[in-house]
Amino acid sequence: MENDTKKKLESLGNKVAKEIKERGNPSIDIPIRSLKNTIYDTESNQLKLGDKVSKRSFLNISHAKSFMQTLLVASATKDLVKGGHHTSLRDLYYMLKRTLPNSSENTFDTQSESDPCIVDLEVTLNVLRENLNLNADIRGRVVGKVEVVDRGDSVDWSKLGSGGWAIPSNVEGIEIKKAKAKYILVIEKNAAFERLHEDKFWKDNDCILITTQGQAARGTRRMIQRLSKEFNLPVYIFTDADSYGWYIYSVIKYGSISLAHVSDRLSTSNARFLGLTLSDIEEFDLKKFTIKAEEVDLKRAQEMLNYSWFKSPEWQNELKLMLKHKYKAELEALSGKGLQFITKKYLPKKIKNKEFLP
Amino acid sequence: MENDTKKKLESLGNKVAKEIKERGNPSIDIPIRSLKNTIYDTESNQLKLGDKVSKRSFLNISHAKSFMQTLLVASATKDLVKGGHHTSLRDLYYMLKRTLPNSSENTFDTQSESDPCIVDLEVTLNVLRENLNLNADIRGRVVGKVEVVDRGDSVDWSKLGSGGWAIPSNVEGIEIKKAKAKYILVIEKNAAFERLHEDKFWKDNDCILITTQGQAARGTRRMIQRLSKEFNLPVYIFTDADSYGWYIYSVIKYGSISLAHVSDRLSTSNARFLGLTLSDIEEFDLKKFTIKAEEVDLKRAQEMLNYSWFKSPEWQNELKLMLKHKYKAELEALSGKGLQFITKKYLPKKIKNKEFLP
Repeated sequence: MENDTKKKLESLGNKVAKEIKERGNPSIDIPIRSLKNTIYDTESNQLKLGDKVSKRSFLNISHAKSFMQTLLVASATKDLVKGGHHTSLRDLYYMLKRTLPNSSENTFDTQSESDPCIVDLEVTLNVLRENLNLNADIRGRVVGKVEVVDRGDSVDWSKLGSGGWAIPSNVEGIEIKKAKAKYILVIEKNAAFERLHEDKFWKDNDCILITTQGQAARGTRRMIQRLSKEFNLPVYIFTDADSYGWYIYSVIKYGSISLAHVSDRLSTSNARFLGLTLSDIEEFDLKKFTIKAEEVDLKRAQEMLNYSWFKSPEWQNELKLMLKHKYKAELEALSGKGLQFITKKYLPKKIKNKEFLP
Repeated sequence: MENDTKKKLESLGNKVAKEIKERGNPSIDIPIRSLKNTIYDTESNQLKLGDKVSKRSFLNISHAKSFMQTLLVASATKDLVKGGHHTSLRDLYYMLKRTLPNSSENTFDTQSESDPCIVDLEVTLNVLRENLNLNADIRGRVVGKVEVVDRGDSVDWSKLGSGGWAIPSNVEGIEIKKAKAKYILVIEKNAAFERLHEDKFWKDNDCILITTQGQAARGTRRMIQRLSKEFNLPVYIFTDADSYGWYIYSVIKYGSISLAHVSDRLSTSNARFLGLTLSDIEEFDLKKFTIKAEEVDLKRAQEMLNYSWFKSPEWQNELKLMLKHKYKAELEALSGKGLQFITKKYLPKKIKNKEFLP
């Protein structure tokens, strides 16, 4: 993959160099990233980019600066890949920030100018940002009977004490040697993850536990996908019963609109929503632990009713339940039934009966 | 320690029970937590609680509810300690939330009512929240030649690939078997930590690398203290050159005003500030990578000039430099000098010459 990315970057550079030598108008074709060019692909169950493309050329006064910026980023990432170094988006911005000779013009004034160039390269070259050796946010921990090899170290996720393994921001170079599990349980909140880990839930139930610690970082999304694909494991998502929890689920399963061009490498379309559902609230008598839904929850539920990827009767019912009751609930609500209710009753019942939303 | 905490909780319960049996007015003496009762102890270099105490009694209409709440929390944490279970503050709130019989009165209406009871117990019983088996926020990763035993697992921090070890929220039960290092380098930002980790900085320089990922969580602060104390290691802190970076340093070194009662168990008074300093900006020619200081930075610098724990000439100079130049800088600014400038030049020079602020 590293070689592949390097070749793609070099071939982009060679194309532009050739156009310059021939005294043409050097240009790059960049697929358009917008809601209008985003498609929900029913076959793969993923949000994907359409085929609309825009041309960025040097001899166009409104393109010239962003053309230069794109090439600067391409050149720097080629050096990163070549040298085997990784860095962050912020670092890259500082690495490339300078004042052009004999002018007061900067290559980049803020990071908000360099970040889009990176995504442009991702779509144009059809590579992941991680393949450009640019690391993303880091969040997410994991525990389970899994062995990986990372930078020459063999790491056994079942032998890391209470901390678990910190999922790196970039998991491309990691080899997953073996995974002994029946399913992957992805948990939004770290507190619930720690509770389950302490109760040895992963050991007793033969599963891999992952906490996303909020919205799943790219490394975590990619790790979920790789584990699921490479070992043919079902994925169950466990979040708060609110709009943010649904969003976390949706991004893991379908991808996001802003990253539609990498859905195939970051999303896990076989993921199922385990809970917390609004029907759980009635079934497990959690009503007194609910919270009043906020405007954003109700608005989001209303919007989601129309998304083609939430058209199943189960999800329509779930969304309508929130609009009807106007309440939401957190994972912690289950602790209202006792500290071990979640590990001893709730999860085993839901998983055994396959009570998932599609 | 678990036994100790259990005994303290039981003795509190027995005292109150005795007072009830004797038809007295059951009460608890709780040390006051406020700036006025916070002392900077020059001998230990720590922020500490003074000796002012308030009495919370049952037969006082303005105390009755909080008296009940404190006892509910004490009783629940006794069960946690007895059962060997851990949980989060939010879970505890849900576990204790209920409606009192024949009334519409709830034991707790929001978590903001149960959280202070926990701190009250911490100060009253002189135990850490972690000893009450309540887990705090989780953040922080570490790498280095260290071996710990955690829940029966032997974990070698030097063999965990690119991810490193995720520092648990509660490190009380962890045994640190060995630590082969000359110092501990604590880094505010994860991106810089990953860069240093990739360059094998910890291996080449015989040190332990810790990233706090922002303000240090309690588990991370405690881990820094334990490593430093148990293995007699100096601690160098590496943050952005701004008010938030100074705050991170100050909390690790001196403790915080809101947690002054646990400074002796969470703070590391031998910590030194490595950088980024405002003098670094001149020395390493980083001026074009600076950012305009915000109001909050300048205001904070002005306040800190008067703190008795920032009265050293070095810190007074640093604070005045910001007020003079009105700029600040991020760790990433060092990447402006090249990707490996930080590992190959900046850190080795600063550490070799012991260029630290006290």
